[in-house]
Amino acid sequence: MSYGYPQEVQEGLLRNGISVWDRIRVKKNGTQVEGILLPRPNLLPGKALVIKLDNGYNVGVLLEGATVELVAKGASPTEPQLPLASNTSGTGETKISLLSAGGTISSRVDYSTGAVFPALTAQELASFFPELSSMARIKTVPVFNLLSEDMHPKHWISLAEKVYSEVAEGADGVVITHGTDTMHYTAAALSFMLPDVGVPVVLVGAQRSSDRGSSDNVMNLDCAVAAAASDLAGVYVVMHGSMSDDYCLVHQGTRVRKMHTSRRDAFRSIGVSPVAKVTWAMGEKPSIEYLRERKKRVGGAGKLDVRLDERVGLIYVHPGISPEMIESLSSYYDGIVLAGTGLGHAPTNPGGDPLARSVLPAIRSLISSGIPVVMAPQTIYGRINMNVYAAGRLLKEAGVIGDGCDWTPEAALVKLMFVLGHTKDMRQVKVMMERDLAGEITTISHPGAFLT
Amino acid sequence: MSYGYPQEVQEGLLRNGISVWDRIRVKKNGTQVEGILLPRPNLLPGKALVIKLDNGYNVGVLLEGATVELVAKGASPTEPQLPLASNTSGTGETKISLLSAGGTISSRVDYSTGAVFPALTAQELASFFPELSSMARIKTVPVFNLLSEDMHPKHWISLAEKVYSEVAEGADGVVITHGTDTMHYTAAALSFMLPDVGVPVVLVGAQRSSDRGSSDNVMNLDCAVAAAASDLAGVYVVMHGSMSDDYCLVHQGTRVRKMHTSRRDAFRSIGVSPVAKVTWAMGEKPSIEYLRERKKRVGGAGKLDVRLDERVGLIYVHPGISPEMIESLSSYYDGIVLAGTGLGHAPTNPGGDPLARSVLPAIRSLISSGIPVVMAPQTIYGRINMNVYAAGRLLKEAGVIGDGCDWTPEAALVKLMFVLGHTKDMRQVKVMMERDLAGEITTISHPGAFLT
Repeated sequence: MSYGYPQEVQEGLLRNGISVWDRIRVKKNGTQVEGILLPRPNLLPGKALVIKLDNGYNVGVLLEGATVELVAKGASPTEPQLPLASNTSGTGETKISLLSAGGTISSRVDYSTGAVFPALTAQELASFFPELSSMARIKTVPVFNLLSEDMHPKHWISLAEKVYSEVAEGADGVVITHGTDTMHYTAAALSFMLPDVGVPVVLVGAQRSSDRGSSDNVMNLDCAVAAAASDLAGVYVVMHGSMSDDYCLVHQGTRVRKMHTSRRDAFRSIGVSPVAKVTWAMGEKPSIEYLRERKKRVGGAGKLDVRLDERVGLIYVHPGISPEMIESLSSYYDGIVLAGTGLGHAPTNPGGDPLARSVLPAIRSLISSGIPVVMAPQTIYGRINMNVYAAGRLLKEAGVIGDGCDWTPEAALVKLMFVLGHTKDMRQVKVMMERDLAGEITTISHPGAFLT
Repeated sequence: MSYGYPQEVQEGLLRNGISVWDRIRVKKNGTQVEGILLPRPNLLPGKALVIKLDNGYNVGVLLEGATVELVAKGASPTEPQLPLASNTSGTGETKISLLSAGGTISSRVDYSTGAVFPALTAQELASFFPELSSMARIKTVPVFNLLSEDMHPKHWISLAEKVYSEVAEGADGVVITHGTDTMHYTAAALSFMLPDVGVPVVLVGAQRSSDRGSSDNVMNLDCAVAAAASDLAGVYVVMHGSMSDDYCLVHQGTRVRKMHTSRRDAFRSIGVSPVAKVTWAMGEKPSIEYLRERKKRVGGAGKLDVRLDERVGLIYVHPGISPEMIESLSSYYDGIVLAGTGLGHAPTNPGGDPLARSVLPAIRSLISSGIPVVMAPQTIYGRINMNVYAAGRLLKEAGVIGDGCDWTPEAALVKLMFVLGHTKDMRQVKVMMERDLAGEITTISHPGAFLT
């Protein structure tokens, strides 16, 4: 079996008595790497080997100028479980559907340019990480393959439908590999669209691509599968909890946010503690510890509700914001979320200061055109309170929705898309928005859950 | 002397042998408060006393249904230093100018509605906090009185000019009382406009109004005056460092952000450690401890550069963002900062996905109309890197500015306003933007300065 390597490479390996799953050592430019030779993903550039290191990371090594030697023959028993020929692999009772939506976790580096492109299918991914097969019976389901900055609300619908059908057909849990840029938006969307899913639906990504030495996808994927096999129900994001490879955190889908451009522990629960911690060590079964009250597994797919109006804009309030720009938003959107300053403010100029400009007429104009305006905090943390200051009171009187809510700007955006998919009646929009649907609004603020 | 109380109140106090600065006890509805009777701020509703409690907080007590008794006569020596008749009070060599720009720190509650309005002048503020006079010679300078959500870039210019003239006329430090909503925007603006000011310029605010029991303005003001009297130079924000009344942190003006809607310790340094810590205890002189390398006091106002183009918009990138909306921004703005996802991305759809939409043509159109587009991280923390993924590379090739920069979205916005006040030449804009002007771009990322 070639496992995808070009014939020339394959023949070279054979001459050294090497086949896939053998332990090999590659020397190049005075350094060496040692590990298990893996099957080659479809789009890896021609003459490169993919090697799983002892620390769990996979690396791609270009063969040019390299010598390859056999260290030990691989264990043949793992071979029959390879998922390359079928879309199901692994053992055990727990059936996990691994949906691939793309992102760095299933990406490769284009060695000619250094850029990262989405490339691996769910099937390739499963074959890249054979340890998953020992944790559950993995079914791989390609959905699409996008870097998540390109994901559009319509993709959320495709994903929700696929999750629904997998669970309806018997999956005990779902793992979705996803780009990290907008993973928290998707997590919120699936939370609203699958309001009572009875099994865990786990989004997972990587901050470093899978063929880089510091990739975080091994641990993240292992922990995601563990969370998907746990007794949770609902939609979660599972990502590194620290800078080390020691544990992942399980974040509630409506209360999670990417808080750093590049750190492996970039994803954080906002205003609540994470739901669970998954402790990880290479070669050991990950163990889950619950950190707070949780929705427990009851099984079943529940209701699928993908009605969505994607024409919603998230507008950042700032000094110098143009009232005319705000008024013009009615041409592009059916609803607006304002990421306001402080407790939920925008310039209203109640004192008539000669230099200040008010956005209040523009907001009144949007609302009177039937475009709901919702307030969210640009501080990220904390609760909207439009009763304390004049600006808040004026905005609330004008009909701005969201007083008392502690949603993130992203969760508020996705929720308004969802609500506007159900009603355009302004009063009903307000009622639905200000009622907690999927944990996006908490009633009690937790002082310990700030910047953690 | 009436110190501003209505005649009827004044006569009632006199009958009980009470005058301002006496220690009194007020009993009402079964509870009581004890403290020093303070002069009355201009706009406090009629029949109320203002009392400084032993914990340093000032409270306002409506007289209706209350009994007032004298506990001890006040120390008369403080009387001659009252700043009500003059705009200078206090003793010592250090001359601090206290500029009032408004905000909660100089606000009062409208007891009829419960809302907070800006009300106190710098002079009233100094008389509210007589302890400041023991720390420095305080000169009060009213500038304007706005809640900061109404502040416009034009107000930054007024403030910078006033700071400049105060320092040029001999102030050893400047404290600016300011609303907290946009205090970090103003701090960034003053940092660019006063690039080499040789004394400390300290913005300070409060998250709770001055006549509420939990107000944080006592400690914040004390610490701000201490920072303004220190051997720092440059523009800083001084606010509570914890939930307790034990210390304030001194944040660099270009790297600070309000991270919570309501907490007293809402202001945080982003990606760097705070510059200093000011330890505080009621009745003691605050002490300053430097936490990292700093600009040291050299004296003098340096250069004043208030050239600014306020027509800049900060646009939040999100799934479903309308490319047509982005294209329309040329009608409202001369420059755009995109708060992009992840490492600095926006939808570019390089793979031609049928559901995805690209904003690349709209961004190219803005840039070809001479409107610079700058990238900043919506994650708040971390550095822009537009070389890793296809989206970043396409945006950078289109001319988007900011690769490698770790500025906050707010600092990038203010900087683009400043840069566009100096040049509209696209290449010069890029050069000026990507060069660190006032600490808004760091060269080394500090792993410890994440979510702290």
